[in-house]
Amino acid sequence: MVQKYGGSSVADAEKIKAIARRVVAAKEKGDQVVVVISAMGDTTDELVNLAHQITSQPDERELDVLLSTGEIVSSTLLAMAVKSLGYKAVSLSGAQAGIQTDATYSRARIHTVTPQRILKELEKGNIVVVAGFQGVTQEMDITTLGRGGSDTTAVALAASLGAEVCQIYTDVEGVYTADPRLVPQAHKLKEIDYEEMMELATYGAKVMHPRAVEIGKLYNIPILVASSFTNSPGTLIHGGIPMEVRNKVRGIAQDLNVAKVTVVGVPDRPGIATAIFESLAQASISVDTIVQNASVNGITDLTFTVARSDLSKAMQIVEPVARSIGAKGCVSDAKRAKVSIVGTGMQNTPGYAARMFKALYQAGINIELITTSEIRITCIIDETKVAEAVRTLHEAFELEKI
Amino acid sequence: MVQKYGGSSVADAEKIKAIARRVVAAKEKGDQVVVVISAMGDTTDELVNLAHQITSQPDERELDVLLSTGEIVSSTLLAMAVKSLGYKAVSLSGAQAGIQTDATYSRARIHTVTPQRILKELEKGNIVVVAGFQGVTQEMDITTLGRGGSDTTAVALAASLGAEVCQIYTDVEGVYTADPRLVPQAHKLKEIDYEEMMELATYGAKVMHPRAVEIGKLYNIPILVASSFTNSPGTLIHGGIPMEVRNKVRGIAQDLNVAKVTVVGVPDRPGIATAIFESLAQASISVDTIVQNASVNGITDLTFTVARSDLSKAMQIVEPVARSIGAKGCVSDAKRAKVSIVGTGMQNTPGYAARMFKALYQAGINIELITTSEIRITCIIDETKVAEAVRTLHEAFELEKI
Repeated sequence: MVQKYGGSSVADAEKIKAIARRVVAAKEKGDQVVVVISAMGDTTDELVNLAHQITSQPDERELDVLLSTGEIVSSTLLAMAVKSLGYKAVSLSGAQAGIQTDATYSRARIHTVTPQRILKELEKGNIVVVAGFQGVTQEMDITTLGRGGSDTTAVALAASLGAEVCQIYTDVEGVYTADPRLVPQAHKLKEIDYEEMMELATYGAKVMHPRAVEIGKLYNIPILVASSFTNSPGTLIHGGIPMEVRNKVRGIAQDLNVAKVTVVGVPDRPGIATAIFESLAQASISVDTIVQNASVNGITDLTFTVARSDLSKAMQIVEPVARSIGAKGCVSDAKRAKVSIVGTGMQNTPGYAARMFKALYQAGINIELITTSEIRITCIIDETKVAEAVRTLHEAFELEKI
Repeated sequence: MVQKYGGSSVADAEKIKAIARRVVAAKEKGDQVVVVISAMGDTTDELVNLAHQITSQPDERELDVLLSTGEIVSSTLLAMAVKSLGYKAVSLSGAQAGIQTDATYSRARIHTVTPQRILKELEKGNIVVVAGFQGVTQEMDITTLGRGGSDTTAVALAASLGAEVCQIYTDVEGVYTADPRLVPQAHKLKEIDYEEMMELATYGAKVMHPRAVEIGKLYNIPILVASSFTNSPGTLIHGGIPMEVRNKVRGIAQDLNVAKVTVVGVPDRPGIATAIFESLAQASISVDTIVQNASVNGITDLTFTVARSDLSKAMQIVEPVARSIGAKGCVSDAKRAKVSIVGTGMQNTPGYAARMFKALYQAGINIELITTSEIRITCIIDETKVAEAVRTLHEAFELEKI
């Protein structure tokens, strides 16, 4: 089995010793155990700080090598802790564990996993502790995997080792029907489908990064998300949930990191959207929801959302483009939010969008933009209305009953 | 050329930026530059601390991986700093730099250096920054080199790259005829022979570890020891000093880390010394000077010195052995010291020992034990007399004149 420990469960030496006891308990059940571990507490931030004391723009290759030391430190400490309990253990860096990536520093993608060294250590009876969040290029240069990196390491290792399950231990107890801080009736799901989890994660649920879930789906590796502090059973993300027996809406996600940009009075001719979105892509700004109003007299409005942290950069890019294409101007609003309902059962069943819009309307919440996937409907609303929107939708889709 | 920076010259980000400027200046002179760097300030101590928060006896393999991150951090920071000055640079771990060692964790010995990656990076025009103090076994496990590790990395790299010189930049200005804090007349040597430096280093001069000097001698790599804070010329350690033209005594070293153990009333029969020193060796206690008094009526005294930190452990081992061989008892004294005079010119010239003993005698300093090599004479004395002894010898051998 592959276990991953991250977040506040790796905060300090005492917590690492507690992880060691959990790891040993898993080994005692007769399993071969591979553990992926994140960096301790604020280590990564401290290392970034150090780099910024040297230069305001640290070299990407060097920054990756620097950051990779954070997980190496925690992996050695966990291996020491396991050994001090009388069990055999060995720590491996991402490179030693065979995590080979492309050379896109700071957000490398895993190409292949060649787990020969891990297998050799498991055969020797070792509990293998792998430093998460990192890999190595074909030229043996260290890379880091970016957001969700350690989760991705864990699921990729589980896939390459043919593990029965990948257990992700973190500071939440599992996947909930909605954020329990917003909805007291929200409850933990026993299981959830890969795609539902990916949509929930992409649209604001912080439990797991969608990228790691995607690898689980691709290789059909069940992923258990559970608390590293309790023994409650957690949520199993897998692909074997019978479609007909379940509630159509499985969860509600919200995301406050949303800003809206509208280019007003755009001449409606080919190539305009390209001009705007290409220049944003070149600046590595991810654009989310895009809506273009129906054209009136050859003039239209173009609205899209970006992460709040990207807003000022996006406006700097869009304003000159807007002028050059003869638009009237640009307006922005940083304080938007997304609420989404997610469920694979929705895809062949009409009426979910209508029920969602009606529920929000009856609660007096204005919908500004709408975007959908086959298994998700997302509305952009005012951020002050988010808590109310999530509660309203939780009730409207009877999520307290599933 | 190979440069090494260590000690307080790597204390913080500002100091690393200062190193970057020195490295760039060397590159500007048209040289290919390889830099070996130590861990920053207290990093190594902090990492050891962290390991001891996990367990009182950290696993050696894991501890080595943990400690190796200290030098990796500083190597990436220096590479960033060099790049921010507009020069090409790349950091390499010991493993990437091709430093292959045996698997004796915490004090691994270098087997071979295969610097292909370094050569490739130099060809690309990079300044190559190598993390010191570390290597990798044939099985790709990280090791650390123990005391003098980063100096050893630097000289070994200089040897394998065929560098013209290995420059060791540290917090002292070079090699002095005696410790300038004890002898105001002490002055910096322009050059010194490998063997003289090894003896001085072994017998207390902190400038450089004898192990690194030994590699320099073996491969005939000149080693420059100089300050990283000034531009003063430093001391060149090399093998080309004409023997006849130099002063016979080149330097005086002192060492306060000396404790003395005497086994009293030992029956003088074969195998006694073996019994005592084998049990000390098994406990990894290094024994230095050994003196056995002339036997009177088949009874003798056996005296030896150990490092002060090893004294209580040594006594625990020696006392039962002494009883079992029928000795009268053991006495110890922690507050001893060594003073040594060193010079290759001494080896074919009689009278140096006599001059040394006479000078100490005239200064009222009692000599307790004596040990010599071909190019060194060492006396064990009371630690309170050390400063006076060093000054006396500096004057007696006219070191202020060389």
